[in-house]
Amino acid sequence: MSKSKWIWHPGAFELYHSMLLHNRRTSAKTVSAYGKTERKSVFYAPMWRADGPQRNAELTKTEVVDRDETIILRSNTPYCCAIVDDKKYPPNTPISLCKGTHTIILQGFKADGFPAFYIEGNVFNTDRTWVTCNENIIKPSRNAGQSELYTSPCDNPEVFKFEYKKTDPVSVKSIDGGALYDFGREVFGKIVVRGQGQESYFLSLGESYEEALDVDFCQICVNATLENGEYVSESVAFRYIFIPNLATPLDIFVNFEYLPLATSASFECDDELINTLWKVCEYTMLLNSREGFFDGIKRDRWVWSGDAYQSYFVNYYLAFDKEIVKRTIRILRGSEPMTKHINTISDYTFYWLCSIWDYYFYTGDKDFVSDIYEDMKEVLAFVENRLASDGMFERKPDDWVFMDWSTFDSNGPMCAEQAVLCKAYDSISKCAKLLGDEPMKKHAQARYEYIKEQINARYWCEEKGAFIDDYKSGKKNVTRHANIFAILFNLTTKERQEKIVKNVIYNKEITPITTPYFEFYELDAMCQIGDFEYMTNMLNSYWGGMLRLGATTIWEEFDPTKNGIEHYEMYGGKYEKSLCHAWGASPIYLLGKYALGVYPTEPGYQKYEVKPNLMSFKHFRGAVPTPNGTITVSYDKDFVTVLSQIDGGTLLLNGKEYEIKANEELKVNLN
Amino acid sequence: MSKSKWIWHPGAFELYHSMLLHNRRTSAKTVSAYGKTERKSVFYAPMWRADGPQRNAELTKTEVVDRDETIILRSNTPYCCAIVDDKKYPPNTPISLCKGTHTIILQGFKADGFPAFYIEGNVFNTDRTWVTCNENIIKPSRNAGQSELYTSPCDNPEVFKFEYKKTDPVSVKSIDGGALYDFGREVFGKIVVRGQGQESYFLSLGESYEEALDVDFCQICVNATLENGEYVSESVAFRYIFIPNLATPLDIFVNFEYLPLATSASFECDDELINTLWKVCEYTMLLNSREGFFDGIKRDRWVWSGDAYQSYFVNYYLAFDKEIVKRTIRILRGSEPMTKHINTISDYTFYWLCSIWDYYFYTGDKDFVSDIYEDMKEVLAFVENRLASDGMFERKPDDWVFMDWSTFDSNGPMCAEQAVLCKAYDSISKCAKLLGDEPMKKHAQARYEYIKEQINARYWCEEKGAFIDDYKSGKKNVTRHANIFAILFNLTTKERQEKIVKNVIYNKEITPITTPYFEFYELDAMCQIGDFEYMTNMLNSYWGGMLRLGATTIWEEFDPTKNGIEHYEMYGGKYEKSLCHAWGASPIYLLGKYALGVYPTEPGYQKYEVKPNLMSFKHFRGAVPTPNGTITVSYDKDFVTVLSQIDGGTLLLNGKEYEIKANEELKVNLN
Repeated sequence: MSKSKWIWHPGAFELYHSMLLHNRRTSAKTVSAYGKTERKSVFYAPMWRADGPQRNAELTKTEVVDRDETIILRSNTPYCCAIVDDKKYPPNTPISLCKGTHTIILQGFKADGFPAFYIEGNVFNTDRTWVTCNENIIKPSRNAGQSELYTSPCDNPEVFKFEYKKTDPVSVKSIDGGALYDFGREVFGKIVVRGQGQESYFLSLGESYEEALDVDFCQICVNATLENGEYVSESVAFRYIFIPNLATPLDIFVNFEYLPLATSASFECDDELINTLWKVCEYTMLLNSREGFFDGIKRDRWVWSGDAYQSYFVNYYLAFDKEIVKRTIRILRGSEPMTKHINTISDYTFYWLCSIWDYYFYTGDKDFVSDIYEDMKEVLAFVENRLASDGMFERKPDDWVFMDWSTFDSNGPMCAEQAVLCKAYDSISKCAKLLGDEPMKKHAQARYEYIKEQINARYWCEEKGAFIDDYKSGKKNVTRHANIFAILFNLTTKERQEKIVKNVIYNKEITPITTPYFEFYELDAMCQIGDFEYMTNMLNSYWGGMLRLGATTIWEEFDPTKNGIEHYEMYGGKYEKSLCHAWGASPIYLLGKYALGVYPTEPGYQKYEVKPNLMSFKHFRGAVPTPNGTITVSYDKDFVTVLSQIDGGTLLLNGKEYEIKANEELKVNLN
Repeated sequence: MSKSKWIWHPGAFELYHSMLLHNRRTSAKTVSAYGKTERKSVFYAPMWRADGPQRNAELTKTEVVDRDETIILRSNTPYCCAIVDDKKYPPNTPISLCKGTHTIILQGFKADGFPAFYIEGNVFNTDRTWVTCNENIIKPSRNAGQSELYTSPCDNPEVFKFEYKKTDPVSVKSIDGGALYDFGREVFGKIVVRGQGQESYFLSLGESYEEALDVDFCQICVNATLENGEYVSESVAFRYIFIPNLATPLDIFVNFEYLPLATSASFECDDELINTLWKVCEYTMLLNSREGFFDGIKRDRWVWSGDAYQSYFVNYYLAFDKEIVKRTIRILRGSEPMTKHINTISDYTFYWLCSIWDYYFYTGDKDFVSDIYEDMKEVLAFVENRLASDGMFERKPDDWVFMDWSTFDSNGPMCAEQAVLCKAYDSISKCAKLLGDEPMKKHAQARYEYIKEQINARYWCEEKGAFIDDYKSGKKNVTRHANIFAILFNLTTKERQEKIVKNVIYNKEITPITTPYFEFYELDAMCQIGDFEYMTNMLNSYWGGMLRLGATTIWEEFDPTKNGIEHYEMYGGKYEKSLCHAWGASPIYLLGKYALGVYPTEPGYQKYEVKPNLMSFKHFRGAVPTPNGTITVSYDKDFVTVLSQIDGGTLLLNGKEYEIKANEELKVNLN
């Protein structure tokens, strides 16, 4: 009986929570009214249409009952019923099903949320095997939405299942006539202020203490008015709280809000900086892993496709939480009609398409590919409607062509965009093949081949020995991005890849990457061609640079040439930069995939390889999660040891292959 | 300052209330549980996707302020702000605007309703001159939604502005051990039951007393459990309430719920049956005129496009309530993506397109045509995507081809469907011309001409002297419907029209119309060619037939050959027929347009004619509303008198023309 799950119209759960989360952003603004000037927390609207859920649902299932059973429909709305073989029943009423074939239709409506259903039964238990009917009848029916988080009849899918932990500040200091609370590292949650009566307080928050103390410029603030001696804020992110004009510090703590993540992954080595970095990356991920993968926890707390695409990879080497990946993909999808790119960004739509094959390849979860496939086709239709007549990407007036916070020759059709589009077609063609959609497979594969060929024909500049941003502008501008993708996605010859390494990656005249975002791709590409030193050097200099400045989480952007609070400035705001940004957590992926050396070679780790590389380390030990168990790898000067909970693996070491058997330690003597 | 209105994302108000109203239907079901059998009110889901409003809104306006002013943003949600020349303000805060040009953007979010804004100002008052931005930026911006019902800062557009009137039963009788309450005629509203303590009562409702007394088969019931001696129901429609097993009658009344309608229209003549009929039609319309025009008030209480299309015409001769027409058109439109026909019915989509030009022609309100034009084009795109390759209508597997409750040769492309599609193109072409969209005007006009020609070429059967349902099936089946449209929409030659009158309309072998719905079109067509006797005979026999059976409102269907409670049966339910159905109110239109003889000849009654016909009456007197005043016409054996509040009219009488001047009585001596 315990196999039942709450079900809903596909996507309703994700769109409901997405709608709420995308409208929770605030920013502190200076407001003058009635002769008084104060700093107030003001609503900050999402930059795209924040789709909500469908408020009606109609789901059906036809099945054979092999012995009499009685079921009861539960719902979160009184506006619901079950139609059993054309007879209608209200909720909370026993329904007898005799032996034989039955068809049940569940109908519901909820104006302020979304309708959800729950039935326990031997056959008619609710799960994704129910399908949509009515308004989707001409389209292929879609499977019901469900979540592993909501499996009990007492659950309420409209309340997201966060956990809470009371967390006190590690220090409170009097400063400038006020009080500065330090929580030791970035936290997220509901601030609880306790005091006397009905006083009002202004709380200036900061990821840095400079921000918290700079009350006229802090990015996030809380206007707290006590009721009966207590105030509880909305959930906010900060490390420091400063309350000006406060002689006696108040009792303040935070109800730390988080989604517990599985923690079988690990990495430890002889380099303490790297060990610290891994933990800091893990914590950065923890804070940003919620309804979906967020970009950063302080400022917008939105779900961005490019950012999420990287979080997926980190997740496959950290928590291996399939549910959050699926939720994020649905949140980003939104609903029809698609009138703009995902997050309004062209490359972000392409990453969305890429992410589905990657998800399948790591998890082996064909159900989800099947569930999201119609959406994938709709997104592709949107994309293809906007391509140039030659089938290549071109910028439309309302497209945001992002790629990275960097300077590109980007007015024309950018090479890096073509590269991600090309990769997207590869993902579609593989998904289509998986689901037996031969015409789509052929179409997408042909587009993949064509775009790859055109990238090489149009964008390669022999003079520069590199791909240029734009073949039309005549500027022959070289940036790292397209060249990184050419290696990472294997879009060009070995010969050209070698030229790129020399002329671009190791060329200090080519503007370096300043975001951990694109640093991920650069390091992934370099590791892929076996240049691990470039990666470990960058972990030390770039990520290490943030740690040496006291970072407790990874930043959105880091420019080592800046000083002091210059580091916190972005988008024209003194403290607008996010100091806890998920896209900085890639070392977890890089170390798991290339140091521990664990990766699937068939979908869902049915087959996998372990190809450990000691790199610049003296020794390391770590674990990588898979759908069905953990793989632990250790490497020191004498031994490489692998202990895996799953079959199907091959250890590759010094040109030799060793079979990995489940739960049997494989120990290879290196001497 | 009073010119301000609450504004919202276009359509949000209508879609919000539409979503609620389409999910309010219930039906009484017999439920057995835990050894007890009872009759319960169960949710009845809408038969189509009930679109809800967009939960985010972003509206903007740029304007010159010619003297300093201070404005304040009000909203129904705290998740909102005003961005004034790039500076952000929370709501309820004074915003100073100095002389000069300003751009204001309003942003808001409301999860459980829709965000609405209100600003009083000299220049920046809120009204439809604000336009959408952000997610609609690539499409043409659309004007903000507003309603004449919500103009005060204290209004809440999420609460529909109904009025309530305490209404007591006219009699209470003890019967079969229970109590039967009779309210004298059909009512709609919240039933209030008062008694002692916490008792529970079962209320069996009926439009007829037979239905109320038939507790096991009544269509609508109320399960009332008193709290603190009182119970208030959801709004329901009934004339009778029966409470079984009730020795002492309870105190019961109804809070009659209605939308007040203007009442300048009237019709009185020497025939008392017609006078009663006019009042009964008026009351039928009052009950069904709410958020939008409903089909009927008891059973589904939904908005159906074909039903509404007729209510529009009745409304132009009764309340002339522009707002409810506009609301109904938006409710029916729903939101993108359009995946099925409106109400899933092909002809209902075509009527929707027709209704917009008609609305303009009666009201002269170009703003609304402009506001809805993009929707109109989207609906047309949906329609054209589903046409046959020859550009004509064909039935798709998921289309409901309704036309009327009648038997057609309807598997193929039905002639009557082509006729309404043809008329829809006529409407589009005229709207496109009005808005200066020359390509669309040409396209729609060409389609109109083509389909008209094809109807005559393919469907005319010389042998039958009539249009047949389907030219492909070989059955040559003749029904009234296509032939009525051929006259009404002027789709064929005078010669063929005359043949139709003889071979179809007056041919008793052709199945007669059994719904007041299509009777409307038949009578309208016959009046259009000057055969008023056919109409007055039908008012007497058909509508009069219902009145003679005691109808206090007009029925959904009426077959004079049936007896007793047979009249109440429909859709397989003993009492499922609606006895208060808006499509029965057409006598108001027919008498206003053809007896009083008032109709516009230029949009919005800029020019109009009064062409009264005494018909079978000895005398009559009545009034017709227009956008700018009422036109009163009386006719007796000696005089025709016209008193109009507006200029632009011409009285046509016995071949002569008389100019009608505003507020000057025009009296023509007939002797």
